[in-house]
Amino acid sequence: MRIGMIGLGRMGLNMARRMARKGLSVAAWNRTFQTARELADKEPGVRAFESLEELSHALEAPRLFWMMLPAGAVVDETLQRLLPRLAAGDVVVDGGNTHFKDDARRAALLASIGAHYVDVGTSGGVWGLSEGYCLMVGGEEKAVALLRSALDALAPEDGHMHCGPTGAGHFVKMIHNGIEYGLMQAYAEGFALLERSPYGEGLDFAALSRLWNKGSVIRSWLLELAGRAFADDPRLSAIAGHVDDSGEGRWTVQQAVESGVSAPVITLALMERFRSRTDDAFADRMLAALRREFGGHAVKPSGEGEA
Amino acid sequence: MRIGMIGLGRMGLNMARRMARKGLSVAAWNRTFQTARELADKEPGVRAFESLEELSHALEAPRLFWMMLPAGAVVDETLQRLLPRLAAGDVVVDGGNTHFKDDARRAALLASIGAHYVDVGTSGGVWGLSEGYCLMVGGEEKAVALLRSALDALAPEDGHMHCGPTGAGHFVKMIHNGIEYGLMQAYAEGFALLERSPYGEGLDFAALSRLWNKGSVIRSWLLELAGRAFADDPRLSAIAGHVDDSGEGRWTVQQAVESGVSAPVITLALMERFRSRTDDAFADRMLAALRREFGGHAVKPSGEGEA
Amino acid sequence: MRIGMIGLGRMGLNMARRMARKGLSVAAWNRTFQTARELADKEPGVRAFESLEELSHALEAPRLFWMMLPAGAVVDETLQRLLPRLAAGDVVVDGGNTHFKDDARRAALLASIGAHYVDVGTSGGVWGLSEGYCLMVGGEEKAVALLRSALDALAPEDGHMHCGPTGAGHFVKMIHNGIEYGLMQAYAEGFALLERSPYGEGLDFAALSRLWNKGSVIRSWLLELAGRAFADDPRLSAIAGHVDDSGEGRWTVQQAVESGVSAPVITLALMERFRSRTDDAFADRMLAALRREFGGHAVKPSGEGEA
Amino acid sequence: MRIGMIGLGRMGLNMARRMARKGLSVAAWNRTFQTARELADKEPGVRAFESLEELSHALEAPRLFWMMLPAGAVVDETLQRLLPRLAAGDVVVDGGNTHFKDDARRAALLASIGAHYVDVGTSGGVWGLSEGYCLMVGGEEKAVALLRSALDALAPEDGHMHCGPTGAGHFVKMIHNGIEYGLMQAYAEGFALLERSPYGEGLDFAALSRLWNKGSVIRSWLLELAGRAFADDPRLSAIAGHVDDSGEGRWTVQQAVESGVSAPVITLALMERFRSRTDDAFADRMLAALRREFGGHAVKPSGEGEA
Repeated sequence: MRIGMIGLGRMGLNMARRMARKGLSVAAWNRTFQTARELADKEPGVRAFESLEELSHALEAPRLFWMMLPAGAVVDETLQRLLPRLAAGDVVVDGGNTHFKDDARRAALLASIGAHYVDVGTSGGVWGLSEGYCLMVGGEEKAVALLRSALDALAPEDGHMHCGPTGAGHFVKMIHNGIEYGLMQAYAEGFALLERSPYGEGLDFAALSRLWNKGSVIRSWLLELAGRAFADDPRLSAIAGHVDDSGEGRWTVQQAVESGVSAPVITLALMERFRSRTDDAFADRMLAALRREFGGHAVKPSGEGEA
Repeated sequence: MRIGMIGLGRMGLNMARRMARKGLSVAAWNRTFQTARELADKEPGVRAFESLEELSHALEAPRLFWMMLPAGAVVDETLQRLLPRLAAGDVVVDGGNTHFKDDARRAALLASIGAHYVDVGTSGGVWGLSEGYCLMVGGEEKAVALLRSALDALAPEDGHMHCGPTGAGHFVKMIHNGIEYGLMQAYAEGFALLERSPYGEGLDFAALSRLWNKGSVIRSWLLELAGRAFADDPRLSAIAGHVDDSGEGRWTVQQAVESGVSAPVITLALMERFRSRTDDAFADRMLAALRREFGGHAVKPSGEGEA
Repeated sequence: MRIGMIGLGRMGLNMARRMARKGLSVAAWNRTFQTARELADKEPGVRAFESLEELSHALEAPRLFWMMLPAGAVVDETLQRLLPRLAAGDVVVDGGNTHFKDDARRAALLASIGAHYVDVGTSGGVWGLSEGYCLMVGGEEKAVALLRSALDALAPEDGHMHCGPTGAGHFVKMIHNGIEYGLMQAYAEGFALLERSPYGEGLDFAALSRLWNKGSVIRSWLLELAGRAFADDPRLSAIAGHVDDSGEGRWTVQQAVESGVSAPVITLALMERFRSRTDDAFADRMLAALRREFGGHAVKPSGEGEA
Repeated sequence: MRIGMIGLGRMGLNMARRMARKGLSVAAWNRTFQTARELADKEPGVRAFESLEELSHALEAPRLFWMMLPAGAVVDETLQRLLPRLAAGDVVVDGGNTHFKDDARRAALLASIGAHYVDVGTSGGVWGLSEGYCLMVGGEEKAVALLRSALDALAPEDGHMHCGPTGAGHFVKMIHNGIEYGLMQAYAEGFALLERSPYGEGLDFAALSRLWNKGSVIRSWLLELAGRAFADDPRLSAIAGHVDDSGEGRWTVQQAVESGVSAPVITLALMERFRSRTDDAFADRMLAALRREFGGHAVKPSGEGEA
């Protein structure tokens, strides 16, 4: 079985490697050819191609393409370039972080020429190469069936699931990430409370993370990672409190708002990230101004550090 | 009618002035006599006393004492010093920001010698001198009745209310402040959203505050104060986003937790204040560390400013 | 000056009345003619028209149309029907609750024939007729100037403001409503805490609302309304805890998410409304199930009332 | 080594069993002797005693007592009854859910006679018997050392940790539970969003829980339990959305408030539980009333079911 891997960023590269190591023939293409060639040099199961045209010629019908591309616009653009080379029965996977509403549109585009679109939400991060990726799949049964070997190669045992029709894979992945935001924030608050407590100073957070992973109710993989981070830097003093967000958290909150479902914890977890990137928030300056106005409370002039 | 004012801080000073200007004879005492003397020099209705003993001699039975003291310990200490000078029927008011649970204890102490304790929650801030204070009163009917002239002098018309038994005044004031936290945060978030919006740059926030006070649903006194603050400093650029809290907000949240009542908005408003005083929060550093561990996402090294 | 009022729902009807009473000639059209005729019968300054065509003939150039229509689709549809009757220089106001992103599209449509679009956010509810509406205006200076008499008639003195270019009026109104959600929730939580407190039973909430409006920091118009509601029904026992939301609250939260501004209080206020409409939430059932799984805690079978 | 187990509730019973099965001699006492006798009948390593006096005679010096008692008052009472039977060097463990501030007081009491107090936070729930308990220990090094065999028997390998001085064990356990509240709520919100989504109906939640535990970022033991619950009852339709809380969640929030640390996710998770137990909340009734007052929006009369 040969599969065409489109996009060799941080995720795509490792996924191509894992498929090759599990015995699949991988035809790889990347915006900069250099990356594809280097991969092919190191992985026996991978061949590098300079153009999407060559890539598509190298696959047997029905051809399977697996896109791991960064952002919305690039996916649409790549799909447009791929479209003339597709035939009825071909399958294109979008394995990136796509909004589920975009899936419907793209599936319709492919359906217009008899080809299939499958959306795959992918979790596992940098650990996926060694431990396997957790794959959430949406699309027609028939198209998903053609991907069986690829899914088996990428995931650990029982690590992929057909979640429903087009969009279901990305929807489930979106919710997964929303939950992830909430879980991370819960741990972060807990350790922050420990850190500022009378017991905080003497407490070994790496050891505590390992302890809690031995039989406690809150044991998890994220806690394992926390233990790892604390082992390197016991109070994370080399890291700034600046937390990015990658989109799915926002989509989850928007979904909550659109569907009228209260999701305070996931939402607050997102907003805490916004907050982490805001110095001297306007809202806080306004609160300080109001306190001065009604109570004569002193305000701290801007630009003055903590006493 | 003569009333003994104990404590001439920001609040007590103005309250003594207001009572004097409304025709009451005020006997004033303060920890530093200088403040009391200066007040007496300027306000014809006020006499200054150097000790609590002299103060208590200067009043006629049943004597009325009105304490405006900063914090819990000082109130207890002052009450202990006052106790030997009190007689059955005397009334001691605690007009400060006292936790309602402390009121019961103090009322019992006074009751043991036949004197009365009245708790008065006071709102109005620096504006109270001119506009009158809003007074929330707790205690026995009989004792509250003796305070009628003082309450009338301090409050605007209909601006005082007997809210219930001992503690009710401070309890109602505590909830008042919890609500205040929520209201302030709601306005602050709204203006922060405006400020960061495509329309923010050209918008006159002082004018908008005045506009909203003309017939809109959100018109309020806090919004008047906001308009005042924006008139002085259109984007509050001279003020740091550092927001203190004075205790009642915390007590309100604790009351919510103890009584099992969900109060997310008041609670979050308090926590946003905590957050405003935390640079580079530990929780955020942990989130950044976790993202690096699972996703290989770059972290921002500590001590590096925003790009 | 004659103005064409399009849409005589709860808001439009009162606004037509107010304009007429302030001396404007109002040409009124409504989907059901009956409503327009009844209005015209009672208000001397109003004439009713059966079709948009007749309405547009009745106005002098540059013609002014003020739309007060319920929802997005109806606005677009009405605008399409109006378009053939418009000439360069005419002004169409959308005074309804429109998303600011829709304004740009509609303004461009009118600009294509040289006509102008003005977006007006309107606050004031059922009280606007007597007290005047607070009007937030977006659009070109020139077009807004033509509306001066209408704005003066509808608003109390200084009760309208040109907030910026197209969309600014609805954007500012959207934020106004977001703030409103936060304010309402803050009061609601405060009274809920009082209600469930040891002092709650004896406390007159109507009197307390009035008291707090005498000199306290939290005085506001919403609190006046609260006093009114409590005067009718001291513990609101005739009202179910089912709270609708009308869209702008959701849009405000989406704006927060899109612009990366933390707005926890406005967001939670919205989610509490979602929650109020959810009986036996799935999330809660899952929490109960998890507690049973790890702790052997008994769950309450579904369908069983509170003990 | 013989250890005296005091209290054979759900937790104590299983802990006594596990110690006995790991080779320790357990002297067991319970308020109702019947429970202790039944345990002794089934577990060869356990002997039952009818009084605390007999129990203390049965142990060799330094005697080790392990209390697993339900609530604050019972612990104090039991400690008072135990006190006359204690000698210098004896160790009393409080393994229950005790507030860390109570530990200091009890430790001082025991120290006054030369005995030692050790606080142990215990996680693991009903699964602890088979999988071992996660034990967080606070107290003097010397006293903790005497408990080594008991800790080894109760915990899985590396499953106990000396977290710091008196109180540290219960403090760390309290934070553990706070985190647990946040984690549970994050999962619950995620599944609630799935349930109310277009993909919800066809989705097998038990399978999805298992899937996410294969390589995804959010894999955890709580998710395993979720899978178990969904396997029994796919939409949890037999369970009411009524969620209790057992105290540590409240203490964690109080700790956040006292130490001025923002912990929005843990706090909201607690408040959602309060909310789950409130039908027709007063706050919601007030919101509905306010909407009616300013906007003429219809309210739903109380007692009327959902349409």
